[in-house]
Amino acid sequence: MTGIPTISVDAMGGDLGPLAVVEGIGQALKRWPDRKTKYLLHGHEDELKPLLDANPAVAAVCELRHAETQVQMTDKPSEAVRRARGSSMWNAIQCVKSGEADAIVSSGNTGALMAISKVILRMKKGVHRPAISANWPTPKGHTVVLDVGANVQCGATQLVEFAIMGEAFHRAVFGESKPTVGLLNVGQEELKGNDTVREADGLIRNSGLELDYRGFIEGNDISAGKIDVVVTDGFTGNIALKTAEGTARLVAGWVREALMSSFIAKLAAGLLSLGALDRLRQRMDPRYINGGVLLGLKGVVVKSHGGADGEGFASALGLGYAMAQSNFMPELRRMLDKFMDYGEQQKVAE
Amino acid sequence: MTGIPTISVDAMGGDLGPLAVVEGIGQALKRWPDRKTKYLLHGHEDELKPLLDANPAVAAVCELRHAETQVQMTDKPSEAVRRARGSSMWNAIQCVKSGEADAIVSSGNTGALMAISKVILRMKKGVHRPAISANWPTPKGHTVVLDVGANVQCGATQLVEFAIMGEAFHRAVFGESKPTVGLLNVGQEELKGNDTVREADGLIRNSGLELDYRGFIEGNDISAGKIDVVVTDGFTGNIALKTAEGTARLVAGWVREALMSSFIAKLAAGLLSLGALDRLRQRMDPRYINGGVLLGLKGVVVKSHGGADGEGFASALGLGYAMAQSNFMPELRRMLDKFMDYGEQQKVAE
Repeated sequence: MTGIPTISVDAMGGDLGPLAVVEGIGQALKRWPDRKTKYLLHGHEDELKPLLDANPAVAAVCELRHAETQVQMTDKPSEAVRRARGSSMWNAIQCVKSGEADAIVSSGNTGALMAISKVILRMKKGVHRPAISANWPTPKGHTVVLDVGANVQCGATQLVEFAIMGEAFHRAVFGESKPTVGLLNVGQEELKGNDTVREADGLIRNSGLELDYRGFIEGNDISAGKIDVVVTDGFTGNIALKTAEGTARLVAGWVREALMSSFIAKLAAGLLSLGALDRLRQRMDPRYINGGVLLGLKGVVVKSHGGADGEGFASALGLGYAMAQSNFMPELRRMLDKFMDYGEQQKVAE
Repeated sequence: MTGIPTISVDAMGGDLGPLAVVEGIGQALKRWPDRKTKYLLHGHEDELKPLLDANPAVAAVCELRHAETQVQMTDKPSEAVRRARGSSMWNAIQCVKSGEADAIVSSGNTGALMAISKVILRMKKGVHRPAISANWPTPKGHTVVLDVGANVQCGATQLVEFAIMGEAFHRAVFGESKPTVGLLNVGQEELKGNDTVREADGLIRNSGLELDYRGFIEGNDISAGKIDVVVTDGFTGNIALKTAEGTARLVAGWVREALMSSFIAKLAAGLLSLGALDRLRQRMDPRYINGGVLLGLKGVVVKSHGGADGEGFASALGLGYAMAQSNFMPELRRMLDKFMDYGEQQKVAE
């Protein structure tokens, strides 16, 4: 990285398109006034130019890069890859490949983003498939959960790769020196999970990785913040994440109903909203935890939620910045090499 | 069923043991004063007798059945089966087998309860393995989710069996004439889930079952109450259920903190607790939704949470009563036969 951190942005993705992106950069400037960042804004100039003209503060940190086309939210990944050349997403990723940018952020089509990133950036040696991470709020801060949707079928070796990537990611973004790692499993003693998690458990224990591995954990341990990095396959992880979102929404609805159910309750809620409820609202606001990272690629790719508004997009930009400023890549390389060495030794031993 | 519905109770299970059971029967009498029920109370008379003497209303509806031993919470299922003869759990299940009782309720060791139930009651023809159901609260009422932990590895045929059992269960307990059924899957369009859920989806669609099947649903749809019966494997279901519990606890903690964070907030919370918060508290109280049913056996077996207190145990008893009073068994038989016929036809066609 030379000079100011540079983030490449696909400005055409997401439900709200360029508006959310430009607003998001504006919000990021306000949220982190000390973070000097340069943005390479990829998209159609007819749409972006007027937005930048109206936001001089944003325009001052952006370089507009015209792209004639864009990947549609409905494109299938395989189609997207074939047609993507010259699109805002393709060009934005290309800037990471060329070294012009330190990270790329997009609210676009997840499958396409993953497929195109793999084509342009390629996988890190020692990683079979990328994983998507999620930052899960807990009473203590955040737990990193991965994979939350990139791989619906995972073998044990892949779960170990996720453990390595998640741990390096947690250190990079949250700065903890030795985050704890757990493998998501079911509770019943008699079952102890399926063959894959049992095999992964053995692999992590025996492969000499420097992980603070705590073994199996259960679903309720995630939100309790018991473990810093929770490893699971993309099928289970995606369902756990969405189930948690749905549950938080259900409980929030009940709270809202309780606060609005009578005159006295309304009065009480009025008093509450003087401060305490604001923090509660922010804590439950998914916009402040927006941003999943596609881990395992030779470059930092951040996926912002498709429905993200300016606040949400700013959070994803913040994540890209944190990754770009960290030593995630060399650290991950070191850990992956270690695991590959273990694999080689096992082969020789056989 | 002849005369008064009879529930056989393993009075020695759970963390709180006989006390929670006797209190639970007392709570059930208060909650449903119109439901005439007879309880066969299995456990050690030295422990149960004094509790019944102190609760004459409970004693009046109970018949004490002395059991010298009990299954321990730490017993492995295989050991439990070998040693269980004569224990309170064994005897309680035996009363369902003999026809003396219409259902059995236990807070004991889940694995042992399942293993012993399989030995004594046996599986219904056409069911490979039992599933555990959970009643999941939603804004509209309850969604039935299964399996939440009995089977960590499931094939497509088993998922179809779960769909059949869950639908019959929902009709029996919640009385809806045509509950909707969905298969839990991941969201990404490009992935569409693993091979097993795709195969199960095809099987349900093609096997001519009279299910109101709505296809794939996502994790956030569960708490939204979008579907009445959610089908998934025991690994995913257990993790989803526990993740939801953990999330509800996290959000409840935030709400509590918001309500207690300042003098004004405390004042407001005081006003709220005059009514609205009580309902919120009850809605979030897991004791009111306690009770999973072990589906697929030739008899009704209800598992109460190991940590259930009297309120919680009463909910499990209520579930046992609802099952005993319903036509769940013949209905399930009819549906399973239909699916077995389909299987036979497929074999012939090959």
